[in-house]
Amino acid sequence: MSSPILPKPPFGESLVSNLQIRDPLTVARAITRVERGGVAARELVREIFPLTGRADLIGVTGAPGTGKSTLVNAMAKELHARGKHVAILAVDPSSPFTGGAILGDRLRMQDLQGTGVFIRSMASRGQLGGLAAAVSDAALVLDAANFETILIETVGAGQGEVDIARYAHTTLVLEAPGLGDDIQAIKAGILEIADVLVVNKADRDGANATAAALEMNLNLNPDRTAWRPPVLKTVALTGKGVPELVDAIASHQSYIRQHDLRRAQETARFRNKLHELLKTELLQNLLDRYPDSRWDAWLHEITERKRDVYTIANEILRNKNNA
Amino acid sequence: MSSPILPKPPFGESLVSNLQIRDPLTVARAITRVERGGVAARELVREIFPLTGRADLIGVTGAPGTGKSTLVNAMAKELHARGKHVAILAVDPSSPFTGGAILGDRLRMQDLQGTGVFIRSMASRGQLGGLAAAVSDAALVLDAANFETILIETVGAGQGEVDIARYAHTTLVLEAPGLGDDIQAIKAGILEIADVLVVNKADRDGANATAAALEMNLNLNPDRTAWRPPVLKTVALTGKGVPELVDAIASHQSYIRQHDLRRAQETARFRNKLHELLKTELLQNLLDRYPDSRWDAWLHEITERKRDVYTIANEILRNKNNA
Repeated sequence: MSSPILPKPPFGESLVSNLQIRDPLTVARAITRVERGGVAARELVREIFPLTGRADLIGVTGAPGTGKSTLVNAMAKELHARGKHVAILAVDPSSPFTGGAILGDRLRMQDLQGTGVFIRSMASRGQLGGLAAAVSDAALVLDAANFETILIETVGAGQGEVDIARYAHTTLVLEAPGLGDDIQAIKAGILEIADVLVVNKADRDGANATAAALEMNLNLNPDRTAWRPPVLKTVALTGKGVPELVDAIASHQSYIRQHDLRRAQETARFRNKLHELLKTELLQNLLDRYPDSRWDAWLHEITERKRDVYTIANEILRNKNNA
Repeated sequence: MSSPILPKPPFGESLVSNLQIRDPLTVARAITRVERGGVAARELVREIFPLTGRADLIGVTGAPGTGKSTLVNAMAKELHARGKHVAILAVDPSSPFTGGAILGDRLRMQDLQGTGVFIRSMASRGQLGGLAAAVSDAALVLDAANFETILIETVGAGQGEVDIARYAHTTLVLEAPGLGDDIQAIKAGILEIADVLVVNKADRDGANATAAALEMNLNLNPDRTAWRPPVLKTVALTGKGVPELVDAIASHQSYIRQHDLRRAQETARFRNKLHELLKTELLQNLLDRYPDSRWDAWLHEITERKRDVYTIANEILRNKNNA
């Protein structure tokens, strides 16, 4: 019997309980809420946060053309066959006007029909900091919704997307044969964040050479931790090599649990998030201290080459501290 | 006649004058200094800033395998043949242990020998914010060094790299036929920042289809400004189409000058830089207010799921304002 005077929790108890049974509509609505940000997003995160911390976050990153989406779908099916509840967050830098994300989603959902795999695209509109925050909050929603494995798929070539993948518990880096020369492929600069390396499209010419180049690079790296990333070959379209890949991920998950690395990973992820949050709020507070005309005048000094941006920043911070 | 009592400018007058005559060693040393950051970097920027604002910044971005480096070299040669002093900043996300950047640089320098084109790779170690700041300061050095055209080459698929390219006066986006299907290629999500679209490797099958797909996407976009990006085909290896590309860039440069857009671009670039700088400094000041043990305790509360990151951030900011 609830009193009408008591404040209602913002999301409602039925919503949280619907979330915990993985009701797809509730999960989708909750992710939309965290994507939008603001007070409602924060209240939802506060409410569900105690329910989180159990899911395995698997980051999957690689250049365009490596077949990420197909492989992630194949992994989801394999994990589903092993009795896991799986969700996919596809971080998609599609422009808002191409409609690529929506089309791609529909095709992928058809492919996964009947598996109960939840799939959601998140587009990188606006600031990347904002996207990273939204992705990590969406992962909290899926975690609270009792998905045991969350696959986070990002286009890897940019540092920002790499950061999203790197804060997963296990990070897969995909390569494919024939994407420019080998140096180019390896130049992607994301090898050192890989826990598992995958040469997808391994039925193509050059797959062995790509795998050998990756092994060679692993040998060159003196800073690796005790875990040596395995290099696996897959053909996502036929599912070849996918069970072995899922086994390799499970091995890495065991490794990080045995060596108590999960807490260190989580600390790094939350530290990063806390810092980003504080930076955004601190800047906003500072921006609010002065009228737009004052900020325009400072910028005008810079574009007119009267004073440089470092000198102006110093002045603003000094004013603030003396205020 | 200078008095020995007067403080010497940090970089020295001879250095600034050597910079202005494009002495390669001086330019390289100055870029190294801004890359390292800190007080010395800021003093150098302050000193050279009044000399800047004349160079044309051309951003060139595209996925791995589109042939960016070869095309940028070909453009540099064409611009040199037209009497321009050209510099290239190649923003390279190579991992520190592959050595790809150094090898690539040597090959490229050979290719440009005798042209006086200055070329410098910048690796994306550490934070991307740091890289973006270093790249824009390096561009200031090259601008002060009287290079008339600065080509900034980035691997485009990540938001961060795209941001670097977007703050150029003219942004080229490269595609190539045969990099996955067309939707995938167009999904790169960077079309809306393009002032000029290039289909490189246009001697390959599918070049016309890729160009047609790009034109179609331009037609779909309702938000374009009055400038419609031309779609050009090039074969960087043979130089085919490169003069037409350089003409298209010149047309865009005339367009932005005629419509007084250069100042708006510069304002956006410097506003972004000022905000990033202020955020970094404000966070550092806040971090310095508390001992590491206090920060560790807050993070521990989060990883233990006692309180979420938004609640902790609010508390920290409230404490600060009450202090």
